[in-house]
Amino acid sequence: MSADTSLLYEKLADRLASLIERGVLRAGQRVPSVRALARREKVSVSTVLHAYLILESRGLVEARPQSGHYVRHRLSRRPEEPRTTKPPATSREVAVTDLVRRVYSSSRDPKVVQLGAATPSPELLPTERLNRTLATVARRAGGVGVTYDIPPGCAVLRREVARRAVEHGCDLVPDDIVTTAGCVEALNLALRAVAKPGDTIAIESPIYYGLLQSIESMGMRVVEVPTHPRDGVDLDALEGILRRVSVRACLLVPSFSNPLGSCMPDENRERLASMLDRHDLDLVEDDIYADLHHGPVRPRPVKAFDRNGRVILCSSFSKTLAPGYRVGWMAAPPRHRDRVELLKFTTSGATPTLPQLAIAQYLQDGGYDRHLRRLRRAYAEGVERTLDAVATHFPAGTRATRPTGGFVLWVELPRAIDALEFHARALEKGINVTPGPVFSPSRRYGNFIRLSCGFVWSERIERALATVGNLACEMASRAAA
Amino acid sequence: MSADTSLLYEKLADRLASLIERGVLRAGQRVPSVRALARREKVSVSTVLHAYLILESRGLVEARPQSGHYVRHRLSRRPEEPRTTKPPATSREVAVTDLVRRVYSSSRDPKVVQLGAATPSPELLPTERLNRTLATVARRAGGVGVTYDIPPGCAVLRREVARRAVEHGCDLVPDDIVTTAGCVEALNLALRAVAKPGDTIAIESPIYYGLLQSIESMGMRVVEVPTHPRDGVDLDALEGILRRVSVRACLLVPSFSNPLGSCMPDENRERLASMLDRHDLDLVEDDIYADLHHGPVRPRPVKAFDRNGRVILCSSFSKTLAPGYRVGWMAAPPRHRDRVELLKFTTSGATPTLPQLAIAQYLQDGGYDRHLRRLRRAYAEGVERTLDAVATHFPAGTRATRPTGGFVLWVELPRAIDALEFHARALEKGINVTPGPVFSPSRRYGNFIRLSCGFVWSERIERALATVGNLACEMASRAAA
Repeated sequence: MSADTSLLYEKLADRLASLIERGVLRAGQRVPSVRALARREKVSVSTVLHAYLILESRGLVEARPQSGHYVRHRLSRRPEEPRTTKPPATSREVAVTDLVRRVYSSSRDPKVVQLGAATPSPELLPTERLNRTLATVARRAGGVGVTYDIPPGCAVLRREVARRAVEHGCDLVPDDIVTTAGCVEALNLALRAVAKPGDTIAIESPIYYGLLQSIESMGMRVVEVPTHPRDGVDLDALEGILRRVSVRACLLVPSFSNPLGSCMPDENRERLASMLDRHDLDLVEDDIYADLHHGPVRPRPVKAFDRNGRVILCSSFSKTLAPGYRVGWMAAPPRHRDRVELLKFTTSGATPTLPQLAIAQYLQDGGYDRHLRRLRRAYAEGVERTLDAVATHFPAGTRATRPTGGFVLWVELPRAIDALEFHARALEKGINVTPGPVFSPSRRYGNFIRLSCGFVWSERIERALATVGNLACEMASRAAA
Repeated sequence: MSADTSLLYEKLADRLASLIERGVLRAGQRVPSVRALARREKVSVSTVLHAYLILESRGLVEARPQSGHYVRHRLSRRPEEPRTTKPPATSREVAVTDLVRRVYSSSRDPKVVQLGAATPSPELLPTERLNRTLATVARRAGGVGVTYDIPPGCAVLRREVARRAVEHGCDLVPDDIVTTAGCVEALNLALRAVAKPGDTIAIESPIYYGLLQSIESMGMRVVEVPTHPRDGVDLDALEGILRRVSVRACLLVPSFSNPLGSCMPDENRERLASMLDRHDLDLVEDDIYADLHHGPVRPRPVKAFDRNGRVILCSSFSKTLAPGYRVGWMAAPPRHRDRVELLKFTTSGATPTLPQLAIAQYLQDGGYDRHLRRLRRAYAEGVERTLDAVATHFPAGTRATRPTGGFVLWVELPRAIDALEFHARALEKGINVTPGPVFSPSRRYGNFIRLSCGFVWSERIERALATVGNLACEMASRAAA
């Protein structure tokens, strides 16, 4: 099937999905017959069939024999969303490391069902093709392969990155880009470029514990900003904090933050950009999940609204292609550009040459966008099915986010359940979930867990979700008794 | 030729070289005939011929037609060594970055003869075999290749590293090792594990400017310790400093430091280890050049003398195999081990998977030691020839180190010559040398330059050395006039 045809049925599926999500097509309603829709849309029957298969795999429609396709009764079963978070608006030291270490000792055990780690399953990635590309590149590279690719790093890769960034509304040229060892290194270098130990960074709450550990290891402080589960950081709250607390920079994940999966609306991005100007603030923007939108449109980074060079944009290919290649990048505005390149040099010398060349070659060879579409569908399906499982197996009063991108779910258990105890007891049953308190320097989210959905769906996963759901029911009813 | 035979003629050459160096065989003296030596040593004629070829390439003997091999008249022509350095014994901030940036803008220009950069030429490395190994490993890796290899990193590689470290007298097991993005990252993590911003680190003087930049970027301070051009850091001077200055840790390159090429004698290493105990000090030991000894014996790291867990040993394969693979490692004692692993995780997530697997495979396949012997010979030859060129072309009063390992030469020009001006004028002639002041936070070494000898000798190099020698003569005589 050619890329164009594939695009066609995916676009059709996305449009139908959007009609269902918006309630235009209602649960139980019959969707147009394959022939009728093919005629109306002037596409082939096979294109419509493909589109319906996608909707089925997303759990949006179901085929009834001899009758046609129907919108599934599922939206009504979805758990409610958690409320906007209310962390304390004060600057504080970060000390999550011991807790994370305690919780993560089991994260490498292959006997444990890993519903905790937010890493994509290699089956969902173009593993064979990438490794083959690296092999080809290595055989051809000669001396270039073993030589330092000193910062700013691989020119071909920076060209590809800049080209794609332009498509997302960012006015970048290859010279703006510095390649890094994944997004982690990019974020570390960006924070070091704009702040020093003791400075306070405004962060969303909850926030990925790895970012907290980075901040902790650099001796910086944080202030947590209230965050809406769908729209991301509450900008009114941020304004209030900026008036009371001396904040040096913001570190935000505006597109599908981990663990909330929230996505800041464009008007908020616009407003945030002008707030940065008004308060003379830098933003370190973690864009690593933005390519994983479940809907048809990729969110534009805040960088796209940044007219005065306030935003350092950081990303990588770790969630879409190959975590183990460790290829990331950052785009810093002119006043930070040289410092960022220098920090890269002093911190790790250079980014490995051949993995960069392999990713650049993969991007040039074409097919990345098609892979992304497939990957997004898989992640969307994983999230939908996990949401379904939560609705089915978890106790009444459980809430869950409805992420429109990425592959993690943030679940609020009934208040009586202690997430750390829940984590320990799930582990006894051979299942790893991530307890909420690691996502906050003030140890909030004591009854929340994060579930990862970045896997190929299987019975083992389904059983594990039922098991932890039953565990939650048991703990909730014990508490009520 | 088998590995064993190759070992035989190399050992013979090393023994003869040592007789010449120690003056047992004197300049102008005839060395034993090939047949006589073969009989005496009970080896083949071809083995002796090979040994003599090596001595010729090192410039130690010359073949005279119809007469035999003679010890060359060369030791007498060697320039004097520089004296022990005398930096100011006070704690100070580091601010070398602007100077380094100014000096290094030309370091990537392929039209410039790079006598400045201390990076090995790819022709001296097993480039094709390594790239082929990486290709094979990548094709076989499957999902492992794209997956995070979370710290402490690749188990097979850590086993190989520990095995070799034991051979060098270090009592290490694989679990002591954390793999890193080259030695640069290892040193950064080690310093962050033992010190914080504002703390003072004792360093040798001169010291590689990259280490100064790392220290500068982390906001630490330094105190420079007087250093002997052959024996390394002056321990009496260090004792004196430790009594007067509050030092948090030492950062030293005991084996073939860059730029001096000095190598600390074993008794000094022993004494240093007990000083660390007495003063409750940590040592970050940069061992990256130790495998590049020109003589027969690899120096043991200070870590081998460390009985109380004071030393974090750092190294990489960047000077011996592939700078561009960015594979290094560190071995921290128990009280720093967890912190080091955590810092690795928070700073760059993981070390790239496939380059680690490729290096591990290369080490397992065998031949690394044979490659090292060849490489050491090439570096020794490069250093000897550069020394010869300095003796021939540079003005009277020029001094130069006599490194017994590594591939850099530290040259003291007549006092009247300003190294920064010399650097600029050499660059006008298309030649890059590294000026002394970048090697000191107190901007000493105003009339020193560092020459790299890590290349395959060529007429282009020879001409470049003659050109900069003539430039030095010209600047010296102009100053005298």
